[in-house]
Amino acid sequence: MFSPLIDELMSSLRCLPGVGPKSAQRMALHLLERDREGAARLAKSLNESVEGVGRCRRCRTLTEQPICGTCDNSRRDDSLLCVVETPADVLAMESAGTYQGKYYILMGHLSPIDGIGPSDIGIDVLVSRLQEGDIAELILATNPTVEGEATAHYIADQAKALNVVVSRIAHGVPLGGELEYIDGGTLAHALSSRRTI
Amino acid sequence: MFSPLIDELMSSLRCLPGVGPKSAQRMALHLLERDREGAARLAKSLNESVEGVGRCRRCRTLTEQPICGTCDNSRRDDSLLCVVETPADVLAMESAGTYQGKYYILMGHLSPIDGIGPSDIGIDVLVSRLQEGDIAELILATNPTVEGEATAHYIADQAKALNVVVSRIAHGVPLGGELEYIDGGTLAHALSSRRTI
Repeated sequence: MFSPLIDELMSSLRCLPGVGPKSAQRMALHLLERDREGAARLAKSLNESVEGVGRCRRCRTLTEQPICGTCDNSRRDDSLLCVVETPADVLAMESAGTYQGKYYILMGHLSPIDGIGPSDIGIDVLVSRLQEGDIAELILATNPTVEGEATAHYIADQAKALNVVVSRIAHGVPLGGELEYIDGGTLAHALSSRRTI
Repeated sequence: MFSPLIDELMSSLRCLPGVGPKSAQRMALHLLERDREGAARLAKSLNESVEGVGRCRRCRTLTEQPICGTCDNSRRDDSLLCVVETPADVLAMESAGTYQGKYYILMGHLSPIDGIGPSDIGIDVLVSRLQEGDIAELILATNPTVEGEATAHYIADQAKALNVVVSRIAHGVPLGGELEYIDGGTLAHALSSRRTI
């Protein structure tokens, strides 16, 4: 129905997560009708990012520098290392506002079914970093999913073999949550991890 | 929190309609982590579209050709002209599967409050096309909103002055709709436009 260039724009917008045919059509027409400047800026930024953004050599996060800002920050505690799955998880952890250590970003989790093993998510690099002996505590903050738990267990085993203190963030009832709406698994966790007050 | 290139990518993704800060973050990380090919293709397509896509000289729709495929289609009836607001409306009309005439796309509607007058939505060009005398019937399919109705009335007045037959698409209860859930305005329309059977 539309001309080839517009059809191609709609179909390439589909690479964005959560964008189906209808949204892609709306986006393409919006950009062409009303925001060509924004479209040009987006194209430029996409090209620059694809070209420029790589991985931090210390923590594996996405960055255009060889070492990212967090790893390079001398005011953060070098002896604490928090392991998360994605850069978005770092943002979530930072929103807690209380963690002052460094991060290690796996960029995924162990998933044998998809052929993702320890070296694909940088656990070998993490282990060699632990071997350097500067880490006093390793905090595992992978997601509380089956894969996240498996990944946490695997890393904990490796770290314990190197005599590094390993901890896992607590799982339980979220603040503001109502017991009535919390699933049984979470409540079981909350019960077994109860603390005397 | 993220590096400058990634921040810039997130902020330029916000030009897409319906994309807020959270979606922009998700999209940027998805593209960089998992689909750099798609990102490069999208950038290329955005650049080509911004450069190449202009307006059809006959019907004002978005196209990279001087005259769009629909206007250029000799199997479509030249004496019927359907006026719609956007290229997406053409797609909707085509889904009816019964219209065989040509289209005229206003790319908007009259909106004095936003400073959009008749010449901004090409009504002057439409009138000169009606003056050529080839149009037997002008079908007004602008949206049944306040602005769409005002636009339809304005065009109808112009067309009647040129003795062109003007019609408006029917408004009423949609197929599969339940009366219980139809608003009063639509039902009032449906009642006043009732036909003896």
